[in-house]
Amino acid sequence: MKATGIIVEYNPFHNGHLHHATSAKEKSGADVLIAVMSGQFLQRGEPAFADKWARTEMALAAGIDLVIELPYAYATAQASDFAKGGITLLDALGCESFCFGSEQGAIEPFLRSYKLLADRRGQYEQMIHEAVKTGVSYPMALNKAYTELVGETEGFADLKQPNNILGFHYIDAAKKLNSPIQPITIQRIGANFHDPIRSGTAIASATGIRKAFFEDTSIEELSVYMPEASVLALKRFAEETGSFGSWNRFYPLLRYTILRERPDGIRKFAEVTEGIENLIYDAAKTEDTFENFIVRVKSKRFTRTRVQRMLTHIYTGFTWEQLRTFQTPTYLRLLGMSAAGRNYLNRQKKNIGLPLISRAASLDDSMGKLDIHATSMYMLGLGKTAMKKEYTSPPLYFG
Amino acid sequence: MKATGIIVEYNPFHNGHLHHATSAKEKSGADVLIAVMSGQFLQRGEPAFADKWARTEMALAAGIDLVIELPYAYATAQASDFAKGGITLLDALGCESFCFGSEQGAIEPFLRSYKLLADRRGQYEQMIHEAVKTGVSYPMALNKAYTELVGETEGFADLKQPNNILGFHYIDAAKKLNSPIQPITIQRIGANFHDPIRSGTAIASATGIRKAFFEDTSIEELSVYMPEASVLALKRFAEETGSFGSWNRFYPLLRYTILRERPDGIRKFAEVTEGIENLIYDAAKTEDTFENFIVRVKSKRFTRTRVQRMLTHIYTGFTWEQLRTFQTPTYLRLLGMSAAGRNYLNRQKKNIGLPLISRAASLDDSMGKLDIHATSMYMLGLGKTAMKKEYTSPPLYFG
Repeated sequence: MKATGIIVEYNPFHNGHLHHATSAKEKSGADVLIAVMSGQFLQRGEPAFADKWARTEMALAAGIDLVIELPYAYATAQASDFAKGGITLLDALGCESFCFGSEQGAIEPFLRSYKLLADRRGQYEQMIHEAVKTGVSYPMALNKAYTELVGETEGFADLKQPNNILGFHYIDAAKKLNSPIQPITIQRIGANFHDPIRSGTAIASATGIRKAFFEDTSIEELSVYMPEASVLALKRFAEETGSFGSWNRFYPLLRYTILRERPDGIRKFAEVTEGIENLIYDAAKTEDTFENFIVRVKSKRFTRTRVQRMLTHIYTGFTWEQLRTFQTPTYLRLLGMSAAGRNYLNRQKKNIGLPLISRAASLDDSMGKLDIHATSMYMLGLGKTAMKKEYTSPPLYFG
Repeated sequence: MKATGIIVEYNPFHNGHLHHATSAKEKSGADVLIAVMSGQFLQRGEPAFADKWARTEMALAAGIDLVIELPYAYATAQASDFAKGGITLLDALGCESFCFGSEQGAIEPFLRSYKLLADRRGQYEQMIHEAVKTGVSYPMALNKAYTELVGETEGFADLKQPNNILGFHYIDAAKKLNSPIQPITIQRIGANFHDPIRSGTAIASATGIRKAFFEDTSIEELSVYMPEASVLALKRFAEETGSFGSWNRFYPLLRYTILRERPDGIRKFAEVTEGIENLIYDAAKTEDTFENFIVRVKSKRFTRTRVQRMLTHIYTGFTWEQLRTFQTPTYLRLLGMSAAGRNYLNRQKKNIGLPLISRAASLDDSMGKLDIHATSMYMLGLGKTAMKKEYTSPPLYFG
């Protein structure tokens, strides 16, 4: 049995994801499709719209065979660590390939860019360093250095596009791991990330879809943009928890914790750097909404995403000290499987490179405990404390 | 001008307090009555029913001449440190006497008991130590040792009574300070501390009165038990903040912070000792109400009051490390004054032993910043962030 892997957030699952999943299976020729999925907090430094169980359900209903949790420490990290976490897990699961959506849609430019940068890494890093010194954000600096290196030459990856950047990091992670896993890419189609839902189209952005849910759009209308199973799973999640995950919803707790920690305390949380703790503290003192708060704190240098990652760690209490203890993912947390997924695990048992964990009670190392902790923090943000699924349920099964 | 001092919480101010204030002035023959009052958190380890501004207003309306804030570090401490903080401030203010309510109502038994224990301190401390080892709470151990020492002898203070105990600590604090301040006591009258309001009586317990406010009792009915100015100040406070301070109200934030800190984090907060952090954490995981939570955590050894003091420090983020930096109160924070109080301060200016602080902006040491921080934490517990009074208002003035 051949497996291909994808690294996803499904926040929430929509027709664009369905297209990606279907194409990944086709293009790779794999029998089994494995998704490594972020848990309760996401790479953009946000609480997930719906919890990992609801999102696993959507994934399984749409034909994913195995859903494995990307540990919190990687799911909420900058692109290179996010990629390292995801690729390490897919490699441990014995995937022959991984498949990412990209604006470019062809793999050669990525490999060419990778080779160019690998050959000239010293020069590249020096250029990034220089650019950062001018006060631009790290992604901007990276981009500037890359553009200067590649020049006007055709045939390289366009690393100004967000999905291309992520894809590039996946390839980089696979090479660093010395993994035999092969990269595949699929052209992304449809809505741009931030487009609102446009009536009549079948693909909408996750942002637009989240907005539609907050506005209580009907199941029929939403079903144009996402599988009906996804709509139903989300509606049920909202019924159970009273709402969806968002910083707006979590802000009272976040604000309290920022004010309680004070600048001296804030500094110790992961990703908080360079004196931004005072700005975070002062903004929390006066701003009554998350949106006003983040607008006060973000800047050219500290992008919204970067600040939100800091906030995520402040919110969950995840420190630099803890972060530094993590070198590589240490387990495979199984959130859900199809019959084919179960079959694959049974057959591959001996080739799987990390312990496969079906129940939280078995997660006894600090990285795993952090995932359980993240669920507890996530549920409290929603005003709930239901941890039943986390502790006592087996992985979801779609037979 | 002669001044006498009282140490109070006014949670909230009622006719029993009015009686105490009037008698203190009469019995001491003082021209000016000074109250050192706890701020936003109280000695029983609870958020105050109404904030310190509303309580200052009640005190001034009832004839108190000066209201000085007892710093958080002392207001939330065990009896001996609470007493030390209060007496130090009254001494610094040049009071000739201080006046406490007691079950016994005469000062001689207190002085006799003080002398006995001073003479036999070594033996007393050894007996307390032995009693603690049997697993009883510290107050119980103290009481046991004291009863054994005093025996059946008449004429000593009955240190089983809560107000007698506090009075004893005041005397002890004054002696340790080598202060010339003289102790006076007044017999407490009326309701026992926990009695509910009984119709037709003019004195009710603070507990009963708080309950009546939660039940939205009418102003007319409440005015039987407390000055009408107090009723109105409280009603206005509730209108402004939407509620009153209580652990029930603050529990969602407390619970989140306990779960976020986890046992390792909880241990660092002031008063948290001897492995209780696991019990606190486990109870927070499952208990949805504060009352169920505290019942799980308190025990014969760790009384409700002691646990609540730990919770107060966890809630505000006050650590052992901070606590250890405080030796003695470093300022007099003026919350309110009458014309006579202002007059007294002007005349006594040169004799006042600590800097007199009228505005929070002038509080630049760590103890003072902690009081401002406590206000911020208190307001967040009520779902508010109004800090205007704390920062920009002068002390209240009742001319």
